[in-house]
Order: sequence, then structure tokens, then C-alpha cells
Amino acid sequence: MKIAVLGTGMVGRTIAGALAGLGHDVVIGTRDPQATLARTEPDMMGAAPFAQWHAANPGISLAPFADAAAGVELIVNATNGAGSLAALTAAGTENVAGKVIMDISNPLDFSQGMPPSLNPVNTDSLGEQIQRTFPEARVVKTLNTMNASVMVDPARVAGGDHTVFVSGNDADAKAAVTDLLKGFGHRDVIDLGDITSARGAEMLMPIWLRIWGALGTGAFNFKIAR
Amino acid sequence: MKIAVLGTGMVGRTIAGALAGLGHDVVIGTRDPQATLARTEPDMMGAAPFAQWHAANPGISLAPFADAAAGVELIVNATNGAGSLAALTAAGTENVAGKVIMDISNPLDFSQGMPPSLNPVNTDSLGEQIQRTFPEARVVKTLNTMNASVMVDPARVAGGDHTVFVSGNDADAKAAVTDLLKGFGHRDVIDLGDITSARGAEMLMPIWLRIWGALGTGAFNFKIAR
Repeated sequence: MKIAVLGTGMVGRTIAGALAGLGHDVVIGTRDPQATLARTEPDMMGAAPFAQWHAANPGISLAPFADAAAGVELIVNATNGAGSLAALTAAGTENVAGKVIMDISNPLDFSQGMPPSLNPVNTDSLGEQIQRTFPEARVVKTLNTMNASVMVDPARVAGGDHTVFVSGNDADAKAAVTDLLKGFGHRDVIDLGDITSARGAEMLMPIWLRIWGALGTGAFNFKIAR
Repeated sequence: MKIAVLGTGMVGRTIAGALAGLGHDVVIGTRDPQATLARTEPDMMGAAPFAQWHAANPGISLAPFADAAAGVELIVNATNGAGSLAALTAAGTENVAGKVIMDISNPLDFSQGMPPSLNPVNTDSLGEQIQRTFPEARVVKTLNTMNASVMVDPARVAGGDHTVFVSGNDADAKAAVTDLLKGFGHRDVIDLGDITSARGAEMLMPIWLRIWGALGTGAFNFKIAR
């Protein structure tokens, strides 16, 4: 499948690399490719400069948001939550219309210091904001509840015996995303319901951060035992 | 141990019954025992009238909040979230000072319809509100992330292979609560940190409600796979 991954941080790279490894035709979207490639310092999360990763992954192209989104069947939103609406707007309403947007971002707000809070939260979610802003797109919230390395290689935690959630209004879009998730090795996919259920999925982030602190590793995931 | 359980709903009854079954000396606290015993209709959650339950559990006494809290070593807050501060205030600052308050409630706000939202949320929590209101008490948030029947009998889900969280500022209080949890059969207790980590634990409720809807049963729990 032709897939655009929006976002050049660790999450975007990890998803893009895994999708390419599964045989998909992947392009990474960014605001300004020249600026992205020109950076020589690690990003705010400590990831190596993009150009270094790009040199090691020559099969994945880099393009402006709109060019990346134009020719694909599915768009992965792997930008940081605060920049997601701007990135998708830059991608262009006409380029996202009718397409599945797999939204794996979290609306973390670092403006009040650590730990970050969520914005929006509780009575709204970033997934819903994206769906409202792009009513012709088919948004599916997923994968935001785990570390990037677990997203694409669930077997690295407890042999893959844990859970991933999907939220969205379109059953076909959720089925397409579920197929991608199973391609990564996810075995337990729970359909939470319509896109308003993204509130609950996004609200896992605060306890995720505390568990990360308690365990000293991001190599864990939520499993719904039943 | 002498334990007061504040709250006469399904959660309070379940916890009180289980603690009594483990040999603890349990009293249930309520605003007005006569009024509680006089009710003949099921409560808003569909639980049978309290008097009916009480007749079947004669070893557990019922007392006004203050009388219940006065003589005990540990207080369980099993009131509904909207009424928790009022219940503890009625119990009396002098009766909660120095004691462990095991706070198992959720600050669900039904005022905007279904599904309920949380209030407070994100940058505050009910656990923190209780700790701030009663600075001499030692609040431990726990058990709010699962169904009452799973709280006291974890083995009924996946043989008990799932997780319970504790949040609080006092290490001894968390140790005492952890002992009670292990008495119920909980094997995986994760210490999330200080009472501010109750935010994350309370923010599990929205996805819990969606999972409940998706699975059609409350017989599940979060497990942190690692």
C-alpha cells in the first residue's frame, strides 16, 4: 500500500521503517524537507538528526506534507500532538479527503512543565479534533498507548500478549488499520467504538508515563486481561 | 484490623464484605443510618436496598460517618466521587488525622450525560483533593481501575494475572494498603509514585467504560505486560 507518515521524530521513523519493511511504499511528510535534512543536532526527544536516519533508510522518501499525502491511500499522523492539526492542514484537505488517517499521536501539553498534561482532554480528544477538522477523512485512533518500538514489534514485550485499541467512526477504516496492526504482529485488537472513544485511549498517557517511571523502561504495554 | 468503609453502594458493600471475610472488624459509614436502612428501592446503580444486604451481613455494623471513622485504623473511601469530600468532612478531620485513607473512588461527573466525564481531571485528581483537604491523613489511591468484584477477588479474571496500582505520599501507608491488596489475592501491585500519580489512575476510567461496552462485561482488568 502507498502510505504517508507525517512526522520525522522517533515515532514517525519507527513506523515508516516498519511499514517499509513489510513491503509498503512509504513516504515521510515534513513541513520543509530541506530544513529537516539540514539539522545536525538531536531533536528534543534525543533522537539522532533525521539525515542520519535517512541515509540508513534510502528506500523511504521525504517530501513536503502535501506532496507526501497526495498520492497515498493511508496517512499516519505521527507528528507531535500540538502540531498535528497544522501538519494535516498543510497536507491539504483535498489530499486527506476519503483517506484513512491512522492517528497515533498524543496531545501532550508541556507548557506547564513535567509531567505533561493533555490538551484536549476528557470531553474532547485530538482524534475527534482531527475528525471534525477533516470530516471527509476517516480517522482511526490507535497505537498511541505504547512505546514506538512496541507499536511495530509487539513480540518484544511478553511475547506480544497485550492489547491495542482502535477508535473511529468508519468500520472499513478500522478494518484496514486492524490489518496493518496485525501485520506488525498485534494479536489482541479491541474496537472501543466511535472516535469519541479516543478520549479514553488518549487519557492512558498520564498513567503510561508514571508506569514508565516506576518500571524504568518503556518496554511494557497494557493488556486487557479477561 | 479495625476498618471503616465509607459508602453503602455496591462498591462499599463488596469491599466491606470481603474485608470482614478476611477477619477484619468492619463498620460501614453512611450519612444517616436510619435513612439508609429505610430505603426500599434499588439505588441508582441498580443495587438492592441496603437493608436487604445488611440483613445478610449481620456482622458488619452501620454507623454515621463520624462514629464509623472514630475508632478505626484504616478508612476506605467507597463513596461516589462527587460525594467523597463531603463524606470525609462529615467523618471529621480529627477522626481521619494520621489514618490511612484507602481511596477507591472515581470522580465521575454525570451532569453532562453519558458517558460521564471526570471532574477533577488532568491537572488534579480526587485523590489529591482528599490529601489536600486532610493533610494529616495518609491517602492511598488504589483499586479504582477495576470492577468491585475484581477488586476483592482478582482470581475471577485470568486467574488473577493482572495489575493494581497504588499512589500516595506515605510509604508506610502504601505498604499497609499493599498488604490488604495481597490479602484479596492481588499479585502485581505497581507503585506509581506520589499522590499526583492518582491523576493517571483516575484517567483510566473513560477507557474502562469503553472496554466494558466493547466486551459486554466488567470481568476484565488492566495488566501491565512487561
